[in-house]
Amino acid sequence: MDKVELSIEEVSALATRCLRANGCDEANAKAVAATVTSAEADGSAAHGLFRLPGYVASLRSGKVDGAASPRVEQVAPSVVRVDGGGGFAPLALTVGRSALVECAKRQGVAALALVNIHHFAALWIEVEALVAEDLAAFAFTAYMPAVAPAGSTRAFFGTNPMAFGWPRDGGPGVVFDQASAAMARGEVMIAARDGHPVPIGAGLDAGGKATTDPKAILEGGTLLPFGGHKGSAIALMVELLAAGLLGQPFSFEAAENDNRDGGPPRGGELIIALDPTRFGDASGWRAHCESFFERLLALEGVRLPGSRRHALRATIAAGKVSIPAELHQRIVTLCSAN
Amino acid sequence: MDKVELSIEEVSALATRCLRANGCDEANAKAVAATVTSAEADGSAAHGLFRLPGYVASLRSGKVDGAASPRVEQVAPSVVRVDGGGGFAPLALTVGRSALVECAKRQGVAALALVNIHHFAALWIEVEALVAEDLAAFAFTAYMPAVAPAGSTRAFFGTNPMAFGWPRDGGPGVVFDQASAAMARGEVMIAARDGHPVPIGAGLDAGGKATTDPKAILEGGTLLPFGGHKGSAIALMVELLAAGLLGQPFSFEAAENDNRDGGPPRGGELIIALDPTRFGDASGWRAHCESFFERLLALEGVRLPGSRRHALRATIAAGKVSIPAELHQRIVTLCSAN
Repeated sequence: MDKVELSIEEVSALATRCLRANGCDEANAKAVAATVTSAEADGSAAHGLFRLPGYVASLRSGKVDGAASPRVEQVAPSVVRVDGGGGFAPLALTVGRSALVECAKRQGVAALALVNIHHFAALWIEVEALVAEDLAAFAFTAYMPAVAPAGSTRAFFGTNPMAFGWPRDGGPGVVFDQASAAMARGEVMIAARDGHPVPIGAGLDAGGKATTDPKAILEGGTLLPFGGHKGSAIALMVELLAAGLLGQPFSFEAAENDNRDGGPPRGGELIIALDPTRFGDASGWRAHCESFFERLLALEGVRLPGSRRHALRATIAAGKVSIPAELHQRIVTLCSAN
Repeated sequence: MDKVELSIEEVSALATRCLRANGCDEANAKAVAATVTSAEADGSAAHGLFRLPGYVASLRSGKVDGAASPRVEQVAPSVVRVDGGGGFAPLALTVGRSALVECAKRQGVAALALVNIHHFAALWIEVEALVAEDLAAFAFTAYMPAVAPAGSTRAFFGTNPMAFGWPRDGGPGVVFDQASAAMARGEVMIAARDGHPVPIGAGLDAGGKATTDPKAILEGGTLLPFGGHKGSAIALMVELLAAGLLGQPFSFEAAENDNRDGGPPRGGELIIALDPTRFGDASGWRAHCESFFERLLALEGVRLPGSRRHALRATIAAGKVSIPAELHQRIVTLCSAN
């Protein structure tokens, strides 16, 4: 496959230009481009420029408001709610973050309820931003039906990622961001694009049979949850937190509401942040946790969640990312042909 | 195996008598007995009377204070801390619950930090009690090394259960309580006792090889996390929340501190409770979620987490539970021979 090499600055400039050309105002374009760029900078192609045609499709169809202006409201002493106004998630996250950080540090634990947003990215980005403020954080969001509940052969849950992060001395902390699916939908899409098989257990075909063909999973089949009924329970929990708690669409409702333009449906996201200095070990928690990480990493074969991504980040920061030429050309075309 | 049939009232009376005879004061005996009885009443032998010899061992060795008086402190506007004073968890949970419920309803989200407790039970019990107050709730606790981190062949994480519950119209709500291990240690102990094999994937033997022999897992081997690196990440998260956040022992530290009397080590537990009426959909959340459950349960082969346990509860409430005669005799003996 032909590739184009881009610096991180070029990724950011291309994404911003493309979003601006398709109806995003400056604030929204910058926020979405920063999210896309962060993914490329971490070597996560599935959440990088690969998503840009989807973002553009939703701007062009009018499903997403590229000039949305998120509104922040303190709805309870420990709950901040941000109404994204039908825009993409990144600006709503940017706007809500400082209110959440302040609230969590004041209250000990706080939640950010993001509603009426279109989330089309990884969750580690928002979690890392909170970890950088020395908070521990969870994030949860639903999507559209893609994963069969344990025991079923029909997609019903979204891929429903759950992310968690913990601050460490120096560096980006420990952050995991994992789909409730055995394999993230983005990864299956990349495998389909590149013609690679996926492992048995990733999904079922339209007939409910196990398959290694990513296209059979994506076209009428279903992904499977990780770890059987336990991963399925986590997918259920994510639906309840990101939709039930926030008064936002469950994955099945998001699909019913969606115009199928290829971009992200409208929905909610829940973030919970905890301040480790407010639970009774204000002075000791950091060194205590570092002693734990030291013992854990002394075990052969162990690495911390996020460490591969953070290592890639260090490499990529000094060099360039490699984008499929066809994708690059498609994005360049989207910058003008509106 | 010979069995003894007991009513729920007889389970409760036997457990209370045994705990009182071994140094528990009335309040602690009642709280622990209620926990043991709840497990038996839900058909969960692994957390029922089966645990009583372990409770007694820790009272007799002096590791656990059977007359501990938990102290409640509001350490931040949304954080309640209960110092269990080296007692068993149930009384600390009972004492902290009303403070947590009040705090969560006032703040929207709140945390309960339980420290210096000895937790030897299922987490669904505390989660269900919060769900009964119309709160959503998470609970996390670590233990002693039993599960190998993904990539490793050495036990390091505890079985590290994570529980989550959601309130429903009528009935006990949806509650899951799942070990980060592919199979709970209690289940492996029951399999070892009864001479049953366990599935491949449950654990490794002392040489780091996969095995179906529960004894080989328990004696020098290790349990494995569910869902590979994703379950391992959850086990890691539980360590950080139940130990790192609370200034309590990580599983590896709990083992180093423990006197190996067969009862539970000293450690912490974190509970997070959220009030669904405080996130922006105060009037609609319940009906909205019921519509979701209806669609989910319409799928063939699906059942809600906890439903099997709740069905057993209904059956058992009307009848008796069946206890191995050897276990029953052992407990009766423990009631007197101190």
